[in-house]
Amino acid sequence: MSNGANALIQTLLNSGIDTCFTNPGTSEMHFVAALDSTEMRGILTLFEGVATGAADGYARIADKPAATLLHLGCGLGNGLANLHNARKARVPMVNIIGDHATYHKQYDAPLESDIETVARNVSNWIRTSTSTEHIGTDAAEAIAVAQKAPAQISTLILPADVSWGEGGAAVDTVPTPVTDKASNTIINQIAEVLLKQGKKTALLLGRRVLMEEGLIAASRLAEKTGAKLFAEVFPTRLERGAGLPNVERIAYLAEMATVQLTGYDNLVIIDAKEPISFFAYPGKKSYLVPDGCTVHNLVDPHQDALGSLHALVSAVGAEATEPKLQQAKRPKLPSGKLNAAKVCQAIGALMPDNAIISDEAQTSGVKLPVCTAGAPRHDLLTLTGGAIGQGLPVAFGAAIAGKNRPTIALVGDGSAMYTIQSLWTIVKEKLDVTVIVFNNRSYAILNIELERVGAEDAGPKAKSQLDLSQPEIDFVSLAKGMGMPAETAKTAKEFNKALKKAFNEPGPHLIDAVVPSEYEGLKLKALPHLLGAINSIPSPIAKALKKKIAP
Amino acid sequence: MSNGANALIQTLLNSGIDTCFTNPGTSEMHFVAALDSTEMRGILTLFEGVATGAADGYARIADKPAATLLHLGCGLGNGLANLHNARKARVPMVNIIGDHATYHKQYDAPLESDIETVARNVSNWIRTSTSTEHIGTDAAEAIAVAQKAPAQISTLILPADVSWGEGGAAVDTVPTPVTDKASNTIINQIAEVLLKQGKKTALLLGRRVLMEEGLIAASRLAEKTGAKLFAEVFPTRLERGAGLPNVERIAYLAEMATVQLTGYDNLVIIDAKEPISFFAYPGKKSYLVPDGCTVHNLVDPHQDALGSLHALVSAVGAEATEPKLQQAKRPKLPSGKLNAAKVCQAIGALMPDNAIISDEAQTSGVKLPVCTAGAPRHDLLTLTGGAIGQGLPVAFGAAIAGKNRPTIALVGDGSAMYTIQSLWTIVKEKLDVTVIVFNNRSYAILNIELERVGAEDAGPKAKSQLDLSQPEIDFVSLAKGMGMPAETAKTAKEFNKALKKAFNEPGPHLIDAVVPSEYEGLKLKALPHLLGAINSIPSPIAKALKKKIAP
Repeated sequence: MSNGANALIQTLLNSGIDTCFTNPGTSEMHFVAALDSTEMRGILTLFEGVATGAADGYARIADKPAATLLHLGCGLGNGLANLHNARKARVPMVNIIGDHATYHKQYDAPLESDIETVARNVSNWIRTSTSTEHIGTDAAEAIAVAQKAPAQISTLILPADVSWGEGGAAVDTVPTPVTDKASNTIINQIAEVLLKQGKKTALLLGRRVLMEEGLIAASRLAEKTGAKLFAEVFPTRLERGAGLPNVERIAYLAEMATVQLTGYDNLVIIDAKEPISFFAYPGKKSYLVPDGCTVHNLVDPHQDALGSLHALVSAVGAEATEPKLQQAKRPKLPSGKLNAAKVCQAIGALMPDNAIISDEAQTSGVKLPVCTAGAPRHDLLTLTGGAIGQGLPVAFGAAIAGKNRPTIALVGDGSAMYTIQSLWTIVKEKLDVTVIVFNNRSYAILNIELERVGAEDAGPKAKSQLDLSQPEIDFVSLAKGMGMPAETAKTAKEFNKALKKAFNEPGPHLIDAVVPSEYEGLKLKALPHLLGAINSIPSPIAKALKKKIAP
Repeated sequence: MSNGANALIQTLLNSGIDTCFTNPGTSEMHFVAALDSTEMRGILTLFEGVATGAADGYARIADKPAATLLHLGCGLGNGLANLHNARKARVPMVNIIGDHATYHKQYDAPLESDIETVARNVSNWIRTSTSTEHIGTDAAEAIAVAQKAPAQISTLILPADVSWGEGGAAVDTVPTPVTDKASNTIINQIAEVLLKQGKKTALLLGRRVLMEEGLIAASRLAEKTGAKLFAEVFPTRLERGAGLPNVERIAYLAEMATVQLTGYDNLVIIDAKEPISFFAYPGKKSYLVPDGCTVHNLVDPHQDALGSLHALVSAVGAEATEPKLQQAKRPKLPSGKLNAAKVCQAIGALMPDNAIISDEAQTSGVKLPVCTAGAPRHDLLTLTGGAIGQGLPVAFGAAIAGKNRPTIALVGDGSAMYTIQSLWTIVKEKLDVTVIVFNNRSYAILNIELERVGAEDAGPKAKSQLDLSQPEIDFVSLAKGMGMPAETAKTAKEFNKALKKAFNEPGPHLIDAVVPSEYEGLKLKALPHLLGAINSIPSPIAKALKKKIAP
């Protein structure tokens, strides 16, 4: 028997959840006080969006949930955007949201608000624990739901009196979730599609099959049957680099994705969603599967994607087929004036073994895939839900989970400012994180979007909404303000030197990479170049795209 | 006829809403593109919490709503905490939340989420506009609801195709809301209470009666009847300074508020809530009206508080009573090592005429009321909803509304980091804002709260959750990173000099006031001192409190 906070923490620990990203207030003080009598690691952040993004990054690398500790509805609100990204990433997470004491809620105190309603936007399971006796079993249920396929977010609301009350009992074990494979009927149907002669088939891989085991299996399928391999646009975690199969990602821009998908008769989807446009645009299609292409889903989200993929490999007789592995190959170091592509090139040239990349570089990262394809093996974590401000927190949480793994955070200037408080916690925890800010003084992607929605003749008031140049943001000063060593690079030589230093010295570093906003005034007819950059599309397709898009 | 975005903006302008705090994304690009063909001022922020807090501060000073422009459910989530503060402040606001095109929502794109559900936490009125033809009338209804007493938040969700579609029509005028006074029965009942001999009565003033007109009327009542004047704990806008009645605020700490309210037979409340504890604490009362004290509410939130107060003044025959006005009186400039009290003293000594103070100084601001009581007239804006990260955005929005009024933002270090991006927009808009960061290297208030909840024997893990010293945050570097002139002050002399400079030079300045965390390890028996500091409580009451709390 213990107080509610202790019973809750002990239940989390009994299920292996030993890390909690926090920003507590008064209503969470008993949880805070209970930290010292347990093995729970509480990691303070300066803003809840950092805590929730970190729990996402942590889960991607640790492959188990972290907990968060947030202060009432407003703390949850501050964490909501990165909880959204985590929900779309399908990572497990257990949120603990402190609340007023049950008997205090009637008074509508200043911080009183409807927490469950906010939580509903991001949580698959929500419960307000109403008594100390039940806190252990409530927590166990939260954990079980978070861990069940598809991994998801549980939100447990903890009133202060339930936390400080006596009579709590921790739950020892939460059953490990069991998932079923796809039915033999489905597996055999898809095997038949893959083996059919004269038809073009593509495989679209997602969530659980983008790590080594799944990639090898998928490559066997592709080599055996001639199917093309694609990865979803924004993978939660994609293992890449020399020695692994290289998979082309579906492009963010619908104009490009359409070309990638042209000509396929069948699209076999494994643990991903059907390709759609990120946004809608006047007169353009939202659903990107070409007319006449048949979609086959191997699994539903509750099933065992990896097991089903192995069964599919067997069904097409590809167990012994050699997968096609990426050769080790790095680009040369860049020279001359710095631009975004050269930053990506330098990263490809210098990145250390076993790195983690958190990529929220937006437009500036288009050359990253080609530059790092043959680099040493690494994990790539991307912006799964489209809510910016995720790159730094995810890098932070991933670095906690990765222990000594070198971590690289690639962020646009606009994105970096959303959760810039992350730098403080990275310094506090002495993590080996290299932050690279692509500082192009604008929300560059919106210059493209302004044109894509048909609003290209924008006036000065509209353009000022995309402009980050007045005043210019000096990320070196921002980093120093939070104790992080930092330097600016305006030439490739300066960048190479700064990057070498950051990779060679342990601990955090920031590089403010001042790059031109290359896509300002970009016309859509320039997109084939961009497409080539993203995925090394063979030139015939690039030509077809050019023909299609150019007026 | 125009597109939806134009019709919406024109409807806002027709009702005098000419300022919009923004952070747009792709789904809002038509609204952005429409700015240039209208008189709407779009003010870009780097984070939605800055936009919503600014709209709050703007409404407090302009006494009319601003609009916000936010990007889908995640943008709304980022703005939620300051929308919560605005809701509790009862200020009017019209949120425009861009959404995916109506036909795109079926595809569950990465940024898709349930916006209405999130909005419900903070909005009294929510509508998703479903056609361009209706956007004008939908906007008019949003405006009408926001402006009706009690002022509140409307959230209008604008799908991208409704925005870009043709066939929109602006609504010319939205009817001005009419509110009723309290009934004569209520007014006469309360007049009788006030005039009754031998009973002690206090008046608790809130929201609409804390500006000059209401304060003068309330002071007449007090002078005529001997009633004591109190203001609510966290006023939306309190006019203070020489030439105005000085009103004692109810204390944040329930232990103090209890003493302030002791001995009253009647509590007459005018546009405020009954006094309650901010949080619940084990074994302590949440409801702070003493046993045996009768509460009388003059108005309900939908009624005309100011008109009803005037009627009450007539009913007790106090129209000709002289109000008691605060004499002009400033403290001397402080000297010696800097602490929080000396910062408040210097502000009282130097603050310019007609200033606006946004106060989120938390524990560091306890001496502000006594130090500024006799300073030149000013507006005080406080943390109405308890969600930190409001002080900087509110100062920013208030400065926009106040045009050339000097604005002072007082923020704790922990609070400042929540929405530090505000500095950039303050610089961009060249506002005369002086930011003073009370940098005590901790969430100092939580040291008190840890003790108040009975968890005072905290271990090192618990204490590290309140500590902001590793690494120390250098606010001068942070300010410089966003183009704001800044300096550090460690002595009173340095602070006085920096403050003079900030007040004398136009444009923004930041002062990083390095002060000790005075409340670390504070025991509750020290509270009478604190209480005295807050409200200049006469010493007999302070003694009574000491006796009551000390073991």
